[in-house]
Amino acid sequence: MGAKKILIIGGVAAGTKAAAKAARENPGLDIVVLTRDSHVSYAGCGLPYYIGDVIKAERELLVRRPKDFKADFGIEVITDIEATKILPEEKMVLAKDLNTGETRQFAYDKLVLATGASPFIPPLEGTTLGNIKTVRTVQEATAVKNLLSERKVQDAVVVGGGMIGLEVAENLSQRGIKTTVVELAPHILPPYDADIALYVQKYLAEKEITVLAGTAVKSFVDNGQGDVGAVSTGADLLKADLVVLSAGVRPNVELAVDCGILLGPTGAIAVNNKTETNINGIYAVGDCAENVNLITSQAVWYPMGSTANKTGRVAGINLAGTGAEVTVKGVLGTSVLKLFELNIAKTGLSERDARALGYNVETVIVPASDRAHYYPGSRTIVTKLIVDRDSRRVLGGQIFGEGAVDKPIDILVTAISLGATVDQLSGLDLAYAPPFSTALSTTAVAANVMMNKLAGKFTGVGPLDLKEKMDAGAMLVDVRIDKEYFVRKIPGSINIPLRRLQERVDELDREREIILVCKVGLRAYLALLKLKRLGFEKVSILEGGITAYPFETE
Amino acid sequence: MGAKKILIIGGVAAGTKAAAKAARENPGLDIVVLTRDSHVSYAGCGLPYYIGDVIKAERELLVRRPKDFKADFGIEVITDIEATKILPEEKMVLAKDLNTGETRQFAYDKLVLATGASPFIPPLEGTTLGNIKTVRTVQEATAVKNLLSERKVQDAVVVGGGMIGLEVAENLSQRGIKTTVVELAPHILPPYDADIALYVQKYLAEKEITVLAGTAVKSFVDNGQGDVGAVSTGADLLKADLVVLSAGVRPNVELAVDCGILLGPTGAIAVNNKTETNINGIYAVGDCAENVNLITSQAVWYPMGSTANKTGRVAGINLAGTGAEVTVKGVLGTSVLKLFELNIAKTGLSERDARALGYNVETVIVPASDRAHYYPGSRTIVTKLIVDRDSRRVLGGQIFGEGAVDKPIDILVTAISLGATVDQLSGLDLAYAPPFSTALSTTAVAANVMMNKLAGKFTGVGPLDLKEKMDAGAMLVDVRIDKEYFVRKIPGSINIPLRRLQERVDELDREREIILVCKVGLRAYLALLKLKRLGFEKVSILEGGITAYPFETE
Repeated sequence: MGAKKILIIGGVAAGTKAAAKAARENPGLDIVVLTRDSHVSYAGCGLPYYIGDVIKAERELLVRRPKDFKADFGIEVITDIEATKILPEEKMVLAKDLNTGETRQFAYDKLVLATGASPFIPPLEGTTLGNIKTVRTVQEATAVKNLLSERKVQDAVVVGGGMIGLEVAENLSQRGIKTTVVELAPHILPPYDADIALYVQKYLAEKEITVLAGTAVKSFVDNGQGDVGAVSTGADLLKADLVVLSAGVRPNVELAVDCGILLGPTGAIAVNNKTETNINGIYAVGDCAENVNLITSQAVWYPMGSTANKTGRVAGINLAGTGAEVTVKGVLGTSVLKLFELNIAKTGLSERDARALGYNVETVIVPASDRAHYYPGSRTIVTKLIVDRDSRRVLGGQIFGEGAVDKPIDILVTAISLGATVDQLSGLDLAYAPPFSTALSTTAVAANVMMNKLAGKFTGVGPLDLKEKMDAGAMLVDVRIDKEYFVRKIPGSINIPLRRLQERVDELDREREIILVCKVGLRAYLALLKLKRLGFEKVSILEGGITAYPFETE
Repeated sequence: MGAKKILIIGGVAAGTKAAAKAARENPGLDIVVLTRDSHVSYAGCGLPYYIGDVIKAERELLVRRPKDFKADFGIEVITDIEATKILPEEKMVLAKDLNTGETRQFAYDKLVLATGASPFIPPLEGTTLGNIKTVRTVQEATAVKNLLSERKVQDAVVVGGGMIGLEVAENLSQRGIKTTVVELAPHILPPYDADIALYVQKYLAEKEITVLAGTAVKSFVDNGQGDVGAVSTGADLLKADLVVLSAGVRPNVELAVDCGILLGPTGAIAVNNKTETNINGIYAVGDCAENVNLITSQAVWYPMGSTANKTGRVAGINLAGTGAEVTVKGVLGTSVLKLFELNIAKTGLSERDARALGYNVETVIVPASDRAHYYPGSRTIVTKLIVDRDSRRVLGGQIFGEGAVDKPIDILVTAISLGATVDQLSGLDLAYAPPFSTALSTTAVAANVMMNKLAGKFTGVGPLDLKEKMDAGAMLVDVRIDKEYFVRKIPGSINIPLRRLQERVDELDREREIILVCKVGLRAYLALLKLKRLGFEKVSILEGGITAYPFETE
């Protein structure tokens, strides 16, 4: 019996990972990777930074060349070839050589689908105009980069305010291009809660990126030379020498569907936790396949590079068949992104998701220093925690700020994956030294505030509910000192510094709801305690203070 | 019935935290804090950086002044007063005013001991000479800083190579002072494993800090003017205008012992998980009290600022008695420190601890990039994982490198606290974007290598065992390319690049043990697979590659 034939369709993260892992597990395998691209194993997530010239050369994005796979792993990588048909009965794949047009046959014992995802092109007038681009492959990114190098672009419109769209917008802006982001959903970063996403929108506005959320593109307008000249939203005509379409991606499932492989409820390929499809011997990994949400156990489709690597690895081990099978552990929809100096991250359920799923939800929004206040470079970050009141389990978190957010989000990822309660989160013996953290980490501070809230020690008002409350008669009382208030305040607030609260208590109306605000929440909490002792009943705190306030201040 | 009297002895982290928390929980309490110091609530962990002028002014270290406690919390803080006797029957504390010499009485309903710890002064000749300092308080640190500002110090000796000693040594060195660290234990950072600590020693030597480990100080030598002039180790006489004693601290327990409070096996005050001592109504928090190790459930004494904050908070809530009692969750002995550009962190059991406790220990040492290799600022960090083979539970980790180590150590803290196996660690959906991580995080890479090792896919040789193996006849084969080998190699190794291994296989002796080494381990693993296919039996990999090699290279 000869070496087993392993065929892999797709040569970016998941496909090459599966190939390399299988080769290491069982060097006796005969492994072939087919890709319609001319590059393999490239860093897709790096493309926005390549456009922004943070990454200078194309070659920096290429992890391994086809010949490296041959030399290091004995894997044959064939580029510029497109698989056109899977014949599961014959265990055969037909593929078309994109250079010669010739059709070739590839027999397999085991097949891995790593066909990825493709940009969604909205069905609008004008999408075929010149200078309307997507940035999914190295070639596409290089095309945009070349346009920029030729200094032909002054105004750009990015269609889609998801992570990639925003990263592209930042990188275009960093290169001096006036950039507008148009997002159909009510706010950018649709998976995030509005209170977090709106803060990011405010930040981007300060960085002179125009964000039009809740806005549909109607058409793309010719500049008279066959290239795009403007983007029409119906209401506005946005000048644009360059349009980047980043309105999401769709899983490449046609090959799979065509041969009888079942899709899941999300429209991506259904797989079990060993990455197997419904057809024996055919695996699906990376962006073309579904995942399972670790909290809800529901099928989800989060096309992420990190998941692609993990699922590729699992498939590689399992199909090699040399040892114990391994399983994929499920995902939390974790994401992190950097926009200028602002870092933003999310994991687990959003507040919106958690409520929709019927959890008895509690949330807090807690700003705190990412390292000792006296240590140079200390920055405030804001943590939103989402907890199930009944089980006290942590369901999700969203964190933003100019400090390190990747550390606390990964602490939450680990905690949520292992079923932690907020009490367990509070007690973690996290690493402390002044260059790295505060003595009580941002994680512990957020968990402690949540425990106080669950114990009924205070009630909070979310920033999104503030206006309605104030319209209904609530007083917003800012308890910071005059100097701080003078610099920046929330419209409609009055200022009574904490230390003068007792003497000025008569300025407060006991019949009205009183909402207290300070910089991060501690002084507002002390003020709340003071007012309660003085017999005030309708007192609450603005969650996140002025630090996390997502609307305009004065 | 009047307000309950709460008395707190000690005014740094734990004492002030307990006071502030109790005041917030129950504003009706009458809270008094006594401290023999003239500062309260100062950032003890910042003192090395204050000496190094990273932190310029004393006031930056002071979190709150006594009058702030009065204004914000209604807490009375009395400085320069030393508690001399606790009378538990009378619920009374006697204290001596350090300015007037007068003795005062303080009645209490509940008492919190936050007496901290004091530097251990080794019983040696000459410790009373001038310019022999400890740096536990702001005054002590200011004294050292003044000496430096007067430019009177050229050579310094730091006695003790623990975290504080090394942080002080770094800061002295940064100020241009020739610095020597003398450590009695076989290596600096005694809680760390030797393979990690020896790497740090090598790094410090490159930074021109002399480290004398396994070395006892015999005496301090007068410079003829009553100040220290040199430090004698018996073998050497080390020139020193300044000596910093950092040979550990001892818990301040005299007051407690004197009134019948029991100590635990570590010599610190025994407490339950509510921070209560054996005497009803008396709590002990912070550096004077014991903790419980979360893995072993044994009493331990890790005097850390982070633990001080947590225990202070728990005592504050519990003694206020206004709600449900809370508990301390136990510690892992987590630590992190920065020395020049190198970051070093540890949590859980060391390999040495784990073996001593009888675990069936497996370890790996795995270098990997902290963020996408193509993203500017990407650095390699080295993770040592310690796992129990039987349960597959993660027992501990040590991480070092010029990249971010605080994030992965906190992931391990969270995972270990929640009882994670290495398989769970491998599957975590950690946050990925090029500025923050690689698609497979350093944590996942280390976990995957561990899973491979547990599955018997390779055997490793630790760097500490290499010499013995080579003396016994093992060949060390470096499979990097010639260019890399030429720059830096391990003495006694030979070079056969991975891609030439097949053609040069006759250079290898099948009878001898072959140890393979590369930069991080991947190529050595591929070489191992290749040699095994070629029938070699005694093949293993140098753990951590040349990246983590803790001895001199050529």
